[in-house]
Amino acid sequence: MHSVQFTAETSSDGVVAREFTVGEVTGVLWSSASGSDRAPLVLLGHGGGRDSKSPAMAGRAHRLVNGCGFTVAAIDAPGHGGRPRTEVDEREIAALRQAMAAGEPVAPIVVRYNLLLAERAVPEWQATLDALQELPEIGAEGPVGYYGLNMGTAIGVPLTAAEPRISAAVFGLFWHDESLAEAARRITVPVEFVLQWDDEHIPRPSGLALFDAFASKEKTLHANAGAHMEVPRFEVDSAVQFFARHLGRTVMSPA
Amino acid sequence: MHSVQFTAETSSDGVVAREFTVGEVTGVLWSSASGSDRAPLVLLGHGGGRDSKSPAMAGRAHRLVNGCGFTVAAIDAPGHGGRPRTEVDEREIAALRQAMAAGEPVAPIVVRYNLLLAERAVPEWQATLDALQELPEIGAEGPVGYYGLNMGTAIGVPLTAAEPRISAAVFGLFWHDESLAEAARRITVPVEFVLQWDDEHIPRPSGLALFDAFASKEKTLHANAGAHMEVPRFEVDSAVQFFARHLGRTVMSPA
Repeated sequence: MHSVQFTAETSSDGVVAREFTVGEVTGVLWSSASGSDRAPLVLLGHGGGRDSKSPAMAGRAHRLVNGCGFTVAAIDAPGHGGRPRTEVDEREIAALRQAMAAGEPVAPIVVRYNLLLAERAVPEWQATLDALQELPEIGAEGPVGYYGLNMGTAIGVPLTAAEPRISAAVFGLFWHDESLAEAARRITVPVEFVLQWDDEHIPRPSGLALFDAFASKEKTLHANAGAHMEVPRFEVDSAVQFFARHLGRTVMSPA
Repeated sequence: MHSVQFTAETSSDGVVAREFTVGEVTGVLWSSASGSDRAPLVLLGHGGGRDSKSPAMAGRAHRLVNGCGFTVAAIDAPGHGGRPRTEVDEREIAALRQAMAAGEPVAPIVVRYNLLLAERAVPEWQATLDALQELPEIGAEGPVGYYGLNMGTAIGVPLTAAEPRISAAVFGLFWHDESLAEAARRITVPVEFVLQWDDEHIPRPSGLALFDAFASKEKTLHANAGAHMEVPRFEVDSAVQFFARHLGRTVMSPA
């Protein structure tokens, strides 16, 4: 088993960000500068073509740390964030670029490629979680949440289905696909699901069908007017409140 | 024009509740015991068979007053809360009871009757708002929100379409109907719409079609797993945050 190796540390706005590796996997761990002893842990999954250092990840991490005192971890998906790419990665990325340049639908390629990536990413997340829980400031007792949209959902749904330590999850912005829906039907923990009502890539019935597939008794769909990239900023606040409800913290007043 | 006549006053948990009349219309006005000068005003619409003194109204009012310092008003719909019933009211209520006793669908009767009630209720709400804005502690300058589910949506949608003073609204738990959708298409203010994913009365496509009808550039659907009566309590907190965003207040920490 690999342990967490910290490679760099920065601090801003009351949040300490530590870059780390677990074996070949790279990532970032955010925690409160004023102490985070045994705080609940939220795992962040980034979107396709992004990585653990993307502004969206840091932004969500800061809201979760400052809003609730959570500890937050993101890792780079296979082939992302400087991690080596396989031949399959190169081929799928080339196919994706070609489709975009030709104005053809990207959905078949994104769905196929992201679910392939998930097969590699799920065991990496599990090994990372094992290693993070070995850290004395995290420990193995606290609750764990998962938060990822787009490719973060393609990876997060099978991860949450496979991983009993995850007790609440925020997903969204992905297509219904039979293998993903099969994993969703094995998920019973509380789920918040984000969908864009006017998504130009994901047909409305496809997004609604994926939400429908979760077996969770407590699940909430947040569908907002607007295009794929126009998820309102207040959905991050809503996710923070969702995790506060389910991982057991009180939301502090917004700054 | 009728003015607000206060008829009773009680106080609990930092909230003053004053019963009032505006002409023949009866209602309740809630405000902060620590002062509410020119606070934004939220109008509450109750569900069918309920009234302005129902626990759900008092509960939401307390959250809005204590959470954001809003002033909150509810009025009794025609034929509700002790207000006189017309022959049509008696006939429709009898038809509704008969359908429920026979296990027949209530939807056709509820939709028809609630939209009939809305024709009477909209001018009553407008006269009430005129009178409330004459009160020195409210005034005519502040923003106004509307919050009503079930029958409160059947009345609130045409009210919001007709009433330029309402600048944000929370609706939900009602069927798509062509005349209601026509009013929804004239609404452009921010809307939050609550729907129950497993509603035994309102078919899912019907609720989704009503949400779809709003012309609002900023609209959010909150669909929760569960039956018609199982809207989670956290949706009230979400509504408070929605009004805080749009009526210009900061949400205070939950108690």
